[in-house]
Amino acid sequence: MKNKDLLRDGERLDDLQYKGLMLIQNKKEFCFGIDAVILSGFAKVKENERVLDLCTGTGIIPLLLFAKTEGEVFFGCEIQETMVDMAKRSVAYNGLDARVKILHHDLKELKKEHTDGKFHVVTSNPPYMNTGGGLINPYAGKAIARHEILCTLDDVVAAAARMLLPNGRFYMVHRPQRLVDIFETCRKYHLEPKTLRMVHPFSNEEATMVLIECISHRNPQLKVLPPLVIYESQNQYTAELNEIHYGTKEV
Amino acid sequence: MKNKDLLRDGERLDDLQYKGLMLIQNKKEFCFGIDAVILSGFAKVKENERVLDLCTGTGIIPLLLFAKTEGEVFFGCEIQETMVDMAKRSVAYNGLDARVKILHHDLKELKKEHTDGKFHVVTSNPPYMNTGGGLINPYAGKAIARHEILCTLDDVVAAAARMLLPNGRFYMVHRPQRLVDIFETCRKYHLEPKTLRMVHPFSNEEATMVLIECISHRNPQLKVLPPLVIYESQNQYTAELNEIHYGTKEV
Repeated sequence: MKNKDLLRDGERLDDLQYKGLMLIQNKKEFCFGIDAVILSGFAKVKENERVLDLCTGTGIIPLLLFAKTEGEVFFGCEIQETMVDMAKRSVAYNGLDARVKILHHDLKELKKEHTDGKFHVVTSNPPYMNTGGGLINPYAGKAIARHEILCTLDDVVAAAARMLLPNGRFYMVHRPQRLVDIFETCRKYHLEPKTLRMVHPFSNEEATMVLIECISHRNPQLKVLPPLVIYESQNQYTAELNEIHYGTKEV
Repeated sequence: MKNKDLLRDGERLDDLQYKGLMLIQNKKEFCFGIDAVILSGFAKVKENERVLDLCTGTGIIPLLLFAKTEGEVFFGCEIQETMVDMAKRSVAYNGLDARVKILHHDLKELKKEHTDGKFHVVTSNPPYMNTGGGLINPYAGKAIARHEILCTLDDVVAAAARMLLPNGRFYMVHRPQRLVDIFETCRKYHLEPKTLRMVHPFSNEEATMVLIECISHRNPQLKVLPPLVIYESQNQYTAELNEIHYGTKEV
């Protein structure tokens, strides 16, 4: 397929710099950030496991998890049609239709009948901001990706709980500001927070992201991993970030 | 007072290495650790504020906060008579009876009538372990200080909420394992977690302690501070830990 047939107006084809994977993005809509990359490094997916990503956007997380893990199949669920369309074309361009499946659904309505059954792992990089807070981006696509307009934290966690198999694992990247809400909501749906990792731009700065692993119906007992620091110096990633980003495992 | 009149059997007089303060301890009972020191560095006490420490043990936290802050008066509440007796003798030995007041009470029964009113700040380094977990120390004093035998997390937070003035601040050091329980319990008593700091022995190790600041009836919005790292190398504190421990402020 030639790029001019592949891409629509305003879109570009980005090299993920990871095992030849390419991703269609549109700056006017939403481009993935470091949060998607670190979530894909934090989520543990074992051989032959089924994985579902909620609020998948351009499908970046299913694509990275396909590349990084031995999982069997990677579903991505997204409500915005423009994003679903981009994600499906990315999957096709990478020749991964048999392994990565993009669904156009409101996650509030998502059922196991839409996905040939439940999942061992659910991931999400959901909208971070309560509709009360933060500037609303005038481009609807970005606003929906960033703010709880079409789905709230409660909706995301409820969907994760509903779609997980017994003992299933839920991995989420979110903002520290919401950590108390996150713990409360996860417990409400019997997803017990088991592992927490703070993400700091520099080691002497406040955390800007949190990584959370919950296990369905597990006993309380949280482990807090060493902090994940993004930058060593201005424009220079730490060794760990480089490893998460570029990895070493062969596809 | 001579030391032989001051100390009872098995007790020793320890130099806090902080502005000449001395503390009576008994190895068979419970000796303070690094957690008390870092809590005293984390808690913010402003000029003329009233401070209450729950589960005060030997009174280490009121003594350190007296030395480090401009607070007006520092109460310590303790249920174990042996500890209360040691703490009172330490306070007297340091000549601080007018500023540091040790109370012998079960915190579940503590009321503002016992303390000439409520507090701007409540601190606590409570027993960490659910009675289910951890080895129970055969010396009752140590066991009571470490396990939720005589008071639970819920009792501590309830007492803090009850004893705080409007907009009062609650500072606690605890274990990461309990963080989800802590957030849940604090919200139950309308003490909103506002600041969190993870404490790691080394920067590449899991957290072993958490420091939490809650504010009474405040809106949700958590800030996660840079990690506090204890050791730079084996037996060598980090610069920040040394600053917390030895400080610079004149009494």
